[in-house]
Amino acid sequence: MNDLQRRRDRVLGPMMTTFYRDPVELVRGEGVWLWDAAGNRYLDAYNNVPHVGHGHPTVVEAVARQMATLNTHSRYLHEGIVAYAERLTATFADGLDTLTLVCTGSEANDIALRIGWAATGKKGIVATDATYHGNTHLVSQLSAGRRPVGGRVDWVRRVPPPGGAVDGAAFAASIGAAIDSLEADGHGFAALILDPFLANEGFPSLPPGALDAAVALVRARGGIVIADEVQPGFGRLGSHFWGHERMGFVPDVVTLGKPMGNGYPVAGVVTRRDLIAAFREGFGYFNTFAATPVAAAAASAVLDVIESEGLQARAEEVGRALRAGLGALDHPRIREVRGAGLFAGVVFDDDGEFTGEVVERMRAAGVLMHYIGPGRNILKIRPPLVFGHEHVDMLVDRLGQVLKEMG
Amino acid sequence: MNDLQRRRDRVLGPMMTTFYRDPVELVRGEGVWLWDAAGNRYLDAYNNVPHVGHGHPTVVEAVARQMATLNTHSRYLHEGIVAYAERLTATFADGLDTLTLVCTGSEANDIALRIGWAATGKKGIVATDATYHGNTHLVSQLSAGRRPVGGRVDWVRRVPPPGGAVDGAAFAASIGAAIDSLEADGHGFAALILDPFLANEGFPSLPPGALDAAVALVRARGGIVIADEVQPGFGRLGSHFWGHERMGFVPDVVTLGKPMGNGYPVAGVVTRRDLIAAFREGFGYFNTFAATPVAAAAASAVLDVIESEGLQARAEEVGRALRAGLGALDHPRIREVRGAGLFAGVVFDDDGEFTGEVVERMRAAGVLMHYIGPGRNILKIRPPLVFGHEHVDMLVDRLGQVLKEMG
Repeated sequence: MNDLQRRRDRVLGPMMTTFYRDPVELVRGEGVWLWDAAGNRYLDAYNNVPHVGHGHPTVVEAVARQMATLNTHSRYLHEGIVAYAERLTATFADGLDTLTLVCTGSEANDIALRIGWAATGKKGIVATDATYHGNTHLVSQLSAGRRPVGGRVDWVRRVPPPGGAVDGAAFAASIGAAIDSLEADGHGFAALILDPFLANEGFPSLPPGALDAAVALVRARGGIVIADEVQPGFGRLGSHFWGHERMGFVPDVVTLGKPMGNGYPVAGVVTRRDLIAAFREGFGYFNTFAATPVAAAAASAVLDVIESEGLQARAEEVGRALRAGLGALDHPRIREVRGAGLFAGVVFDDDGEFTGEVVERMRAAGVLMHYIGPGRNILKIRPPLVFGHEHVDMLVDRLGQVLKEMG
Repeated sequence: MNDLQRRRDRVLGPMMTTFYRDPVELVRGEGVWLWDAAGNRYLDAYNNVPHVGHGHPTVVEAVARQMATLNTHSRYLHEGIVAYAERLTATFADGLDTLTLVCTGSEANDIALRIGWAATGKKGIVATDATYHGNTHLVSQLSAGRRPVGGRVDWVRRVPPPGGAVDGAAFAASIGAAIDSLEADGHGFAALILDPFLANEGFPSLPPGALDAAVALVRARGGIVIADEVQPGFGRLGSHFWGHERMGFVPDVVTLGKPMGNGYPVAGVVTRRDLIAAFREGFGYFNTFAATPVAAAAASAVLDVIESEGLQARAEEVGRALRAGLGALDHPRIREVRGAGLFAGVVFDDDGEFTGEVVERMRAAGVLMHYIGPGRNILKIRPPLVFGHEHVDMLVDRLGQVLKEMG
């Protein structure tokens, strides 16, 4: 442990997780590049928060300008907030026409679940069994990983995600059984929440329509569908701006987070007017830091850059090259290359340490990435959308070398 | 409803509250001043988020510089985050030596309650009956105002705050009865949460030591004390940097919010190492947008300005003049002038509309303020700390005119 780590442990407290055995101290970022305190440069193939690139001047300038001009809460009127909400909701299907701004994806999902309660008068929630939707007390109850102090609430049911042996019909059947169980226990059924790309579940390759049976079943049983677009949204998947569009369904509620402000803490809930009305009627809601002129400026600048630099099309094109490059790697452990746009995964035959070791060695080789999936055996490649062909070449080249070294 | 209001209602949805019968559209702020779209200037005597003044260049430049340099999450190491945490915790009593950064005061209180659970293994929470601690599902259960869809949880007890007829001993006795009730119902007792300035309760004038009996009782009964410093903290009260210092007790957990980043969404939880360890062990926690280099830069710049401009001493001195000026106003409805530092209240004899009408007329007279307290009969004056004697003169002068008009 170096001096900074010791100080960090002392003042931030124990169990503040870091990446890598020997954590990286970052000091500078630009586009797809990061530099550590020793001057080493890393290709960032992991971070999705800097969606349009680290330190993008358009976003920095928009935030600085608006901070210098005005930053107040939403109990005063402001054109910028309304204009952003109009612009963002225009990217959704008809009906998904209101935006509630919040600060974090966790806050967005904390609202989304309560929209389900308010809309149905029921309490039961269904989620997948390998998911993560955030860190508030309510939302953290969805995570299967850790049994919280005081135990779990009894109105959440977890089902195996689709993918592999679980097809769309089997997924819907599991949800149906979960709803039966919620109803039998007197909770009733309010909502299904899922990431339409199933990122934390390891983003299995699913054909469009694979979630249709589940969505139809949820509605037939009186519930609503919440799509958590924190990871797939804002053009990352290339072919579509939103993950649910790619799968071909329209959710009732969409939650947004990480990439929305390129690092400025802004997140949101997009839903129908009747649903947000039911929530506000049922719970009341105000968020001081959320619907501010600066949050709107940051988020609006992100949309500006996505459009002006054609980042969705770039994600599609460069992502294709990335998957092709990864697919050309030859190693006995590689089971599959998967993903969409600039969200790619290499699935390894690994019942233990292999994928983690690849991540460590890639860091030593100057490329930051991570692993994901219930078995932690999927290399997670999710770079800023300004990733280009030259970065793909570097990543694939270094990964090839690392895999060769590891034999 | 003007065009902007109509568009706002359409795209942000219904029940997005605004201040004033005819809401203000703000376009610019500087120091203690705000301007609306028609060019009218307002003295801001209400907003505490722009703690060191609207658009303070030190904060704007710190945020812009750090955003252009690097903004990543806390799984990489960063000197700025650690240095800020060291600097902030140094303002607290020994033992309160760890900082967990989050994005909003709501997130901070959502953690604080769970620290109570993790530390005690019990569930019961005691709060005052006129409080507000935030908007997550968990924290909103503390608010007495609105019965949420699905009803209230059964492990919160609300007690009348101290002040008026309720002295420190009576407050402690109410808490004792609440703890008895929680224990009788099998929940046990985890924590008392309260704002040591009791801002939402109408900040009754309490002598130092008035909360000592309550604090001692909570500890004798095995619980922890959570001080919500979102409103009183960061020098606003003049005589002390924190509200609990002013009352003369040391809490187990302190939550921070609004003024911390002068509008940048940063908040925090300061507590002992053993308590944050129990929380992280019991729940796990990671917050993408929270412990970032930019959040630390914003919060650090706020401390810089408080120090370099002597804002705590200024709050004490100008606040004294403010209370003196308010106290010299002569109107039959004025029952009391109260407060500390730059947090002042004028308590009116008002069983209905009077205080609200004062707020409306003060807006028309170019001064923004609001009302507070269970009876909504207290004028709430809580300006940025760069408020000066000339602003006090203007506020008192305009308020005198408004009260005279109202007869």
